[in-house]
Amino acid sequence: MSDPFVVVGGDAAGLSAASKCKREAPDREVIVFEKGRWISFAHCGMPYYVKGEVESLGDLLSLSPGDVADRGIDLRRSHEVVAVDADAGTVTVESDGERVEQPYGDLLVATGAHAIDDSVDGADRDGVFTIHSMDAAAALRAFLTPPGEEPDDFGDLPVDHERVAAYADREPPASAAIVGGGYVGVEMAEALGARGLDVHLFQRSEFPLPTFGEAVGEHVAETLRDHGVTLHLNSEVERLDGGDSVEAVVTDSERVPVDAAVVGVGVEPNTELLDGSGVELGASGAVAVDEYGRTNREGVYAAGDCAEDRHAVTGDPDWVPLGLTANRAGRAIGRTVAGTPTPVGDIAGTAVVKAFEAECGRTGIIDHERAREAGFDPVSETITAGSRSGYYPGGADTTVTLTADRGTGRLLGGAIVGEDRAAIRIDTLATALEGDATVAELERLDLAYAPPFSPVWDPVLVAAKVLNGSIEG
Amino acid sequence: MSDPFVVVGGDAAGLSAASKCKREAPDREVIVFEKGRWISFAHCGMPYYVKGEVESLGDLLSLSPGDVADRGIDLRRSHEVVAVDADAGTVTVESDGERVEQPYGDLLVATGAHAIDDSVDGADRDGVFTIHSMDAAAALRAFLTPPGEEPDDFGDLPVDHERVAAYADREPPASAAIVGGGYVGVEMAEALGARGLDVHLFQRSEFPLPTFGEAVGEHVAETLRDHGVTLHLNSEVERLDGGDSVEAVVTDSERVPVDAAVVGVGVEPNTELLDGSGVELGASGAVAVDEYGRTNREGVYAAGDCAEDRHAVTGDPDWVPLGLTANRAGRAIGRTVAGTPTPVGDIAGTAVVKAFEAECGRTGIIDHERAREAGFDPVSETITAGSRSGYYPGGADTTVTLTADRGTGRLLGGAIVGEDRAAIRIDTLATALEGDATVAELERLDLAYAPPFSPVWDPVLVAAKVLNGSIEG
Repeated sequence: MSDPFVVVGGDAAGLSAASKCKREAPDREVIVFEKGRWISFAHCGMPYYVKGEVESLGDLLSLSPGDVADRGIDLRRSHEVVAVDADAGTVTVESDGERVEQPYGDLLVATGAHAIDDSVDGADRDGVFTIHSMDAAAALRAFLTPPGEEPDDFGDLPVDHERVAAYADREPPASAAIVGGGYVGVEMAEALGARGLDVHLFQRSEFPLPTFGEAVGEHVAETLRDHGVTLHLNSEVERLDGGDSVEAVVTDSERVPVDAAVVGVGVEPNTELLDGSGVELGASGAVAVDEYGRTNREGVYAAGDCAEDRHAVTGDPDWVPLGLTANRAGRAIGRTVAGTPTPVGDIAGTAVVKAFEAECGRTGIIDHERAREAGFDPVSETITAGSRSGYYPGGADTTVTLTADRGTGRLLGGAIVGEDRAAIRIDTLATALEGDATVAELERLDLAYAPPFSPVWDPVLVAAKVLNGSIEG
Repeated sequence: MSDPFVVVGGDAAGLSAASKCKREAPDREVIVFEKGRWISFAHCGMPYYVKGEVESLGDLLSLSPGDVADRGIDLRRSHEVVAVDADAGTVTVESDGERVEQPYGDLLVATGAHAIDDSVDGADRDGVFTIHSMDAAAALRAFLTPPGEEPDDFGDLPVDHERVAAYADREPPASAAIVGGGYVGVEMAEALGARGLDVHLFQRSEFPLPTFGEAVGEHVAETLRDHGVTLHLNSEVERLDGGDSVEAVVTDSERVPVDAAVVGVGVEPNTELLDGSGVELGASGAVAVDEYGRTNREGVYAAGDCAEDRHAVTGDPDWVPLGLTANRAGRAIGRTVAGTPTPVGDIAGTAVVKAFEAECGRTGIIDHERAREAGFDPVSETITAGSRSGYYPGGADTTVTLTADRGTGRLLGGAIVGEDRAAIRIDTLATALEGDATVAELERLDLAYAPPFSPVWDPVLVAAKVLNGSIEG
């Protein structure tokens, strides 16, 4: 096939695919269209850049345009793919007000997702940020930088200098609202708290990090409060009040004056370019794909935050937009289009997040309603145990929740929180999930034990013992 | 059955079994014979007690004799079981020079292991220690305690006060030899180094921790050297020279003067009481058992450091005396004899050890010769990758070795070393091993990613990618 491999989107999935294809099939023409100026940046690192723990915005870039060119990839930034004609095998590309039709042999849609902000009235005011773009991160960092601190100089990065300069000129905010207590909200609470702001976090549900379950959520709530964050739980934000700039958060029950706000209420897949293409979306609104990342249209693939994946526990399509999934699926599709069909892999919904010193992890299905929808009869237990031998210094209480199917004893999911190497322990559960382990099997795993790292019975094993006891009655 | 459950040995396996049986069948009579004065102590904590990181010897005890009595267990210390008559269903117990016959309904042999010291000539001199008993740990700590430091007062612990006092009166050693570079040797090098001694570690093979493979061994060798430990590798210790006290280590090529020595060349199972009993030992010399911990004789079980287990990778019997295995098997047997047959679980040979700041882990089969003996066609790769996102502070290079079977792609084992949460990552591999995962499946695991804890591709996934590349050619 002489037609090129065309990739839409120059971030994790797109560039992983382009790079892998080019490495395996060096003669294949590979074109990447990126509508913006930024490529290959670490979304997950932005809160730490805002916090100041990551010094320069440029540290968040994995690949420069030059690196991409060195790999033999034809990268075209500021080129937006606005339509796909899957019958003709072409895409319509807009750049500088011009439109061209680009034929493809294989097409990868790796357009990512965008932060939802239109659900919050007033989110367009100055001083309101969604932490989903490099320019927003740069502007917020400039806003927070006190007069005495050296500003990030950005070098030759394609930063929106005008926006940055406007915020740099303003007085740094003394208080901020965070709308949404998911990953981004919790990470931003840490970032802004560390900057000395008076932080107010607004969350609809009873506790932050709802997808991590109650035990993690309660622990994180306590940690946030310990660090001076004011939590407004069971709280629906109605609007962000103010003039040009945000001045207050208004909920159904209160009005809290703030100098800045971060909206982190989730993301939505970017799929507009597929309107009318015949490429099917799944129930989540993201692109439906098979185990090789193929859509329903010949030669059209999708990967990353715009695409669904198969869930390891339910076997059903699911949409969990996270970094590893994007990289892995992109790499697999790059290999597939280069001639070696490679599955993109299932997802287990594994996620970890740091909230000040609390390390949180979750994987699989924890929530009972969700488990019942998938046809399981869920049973859960939550335990707290030490992270090290009791006599060895430096350990911390570690809380583990496990959920299983009562009938089969199969592990469905788990969550963990603690201050000592807690988050990384979720990988044990993620691995067990993908091996379809039962809780009885989990209980018998030969896990690591040495006083500095784990007690004889790791917290994960303690949880398995207790849950297995419940299951076996 | 009205005859009692008799347990020989009052440590991890024995007391786990006794406790579990009593909890599940409160009316069953449970008798534990322990030949020494100590019960239920943390072997693995001794190096940290010697180091001074664990303050008091009593901190290493999990259960006191009073705790055991409170559980309704008839614990008899200073009672040695010297023979088993499996035909009659009795054991012969010696105490205070008297012998009695004790009938049993079920019998658990949980006699543990003893340190090998007779292979080193001169190991009986003063100033030479094996770190396998509480009295030895107490004596060495007393020897190391400088005049100005408060000695451990031991409270009412059954310490050999005479031996402790003799060492407390001596001048603290300025130098020490460690014979053997396994776990104990490496942990003791850290302990004695932290005490300011000039430490010489002697190891037969090319690098310490040989069961962790070359990459870990080389890393640990470098770490030990960085901390001032002098390594004598490929070095066979012929004898410990001196008068009453040790004065030097003599190898085939040198004589190194030292003030003290620790011998850590391994342990041997305690099985003498089974001589003539008809209870079969395995090829390792430890007691052969089935998946429920049953020996070949009716009603006789064995668990802990004196017993074999089934290896998760080979399916064959193996002997890996470690703490979790003992606790888990004891607990399972306690449940079995109480009426609910419960498998003791396989072992994967998972082990972790700290060498100063280096965190080391291993699981399964890494060594190619061993893999070939088990019928596999081994292939390995070793990689080094960051433990966190490159831009996030606090990460460390993490080196992972994976071994797989070339024909089937099945993961056989792995090892890891690094300074940032490295050891606990071995649990991911141990879990994958017990699920019979292939390297391709390992590569597609949905593991945790967040900048403070892991890069997008965890070092374990990087290793899987590279090894899978080798396997697939």
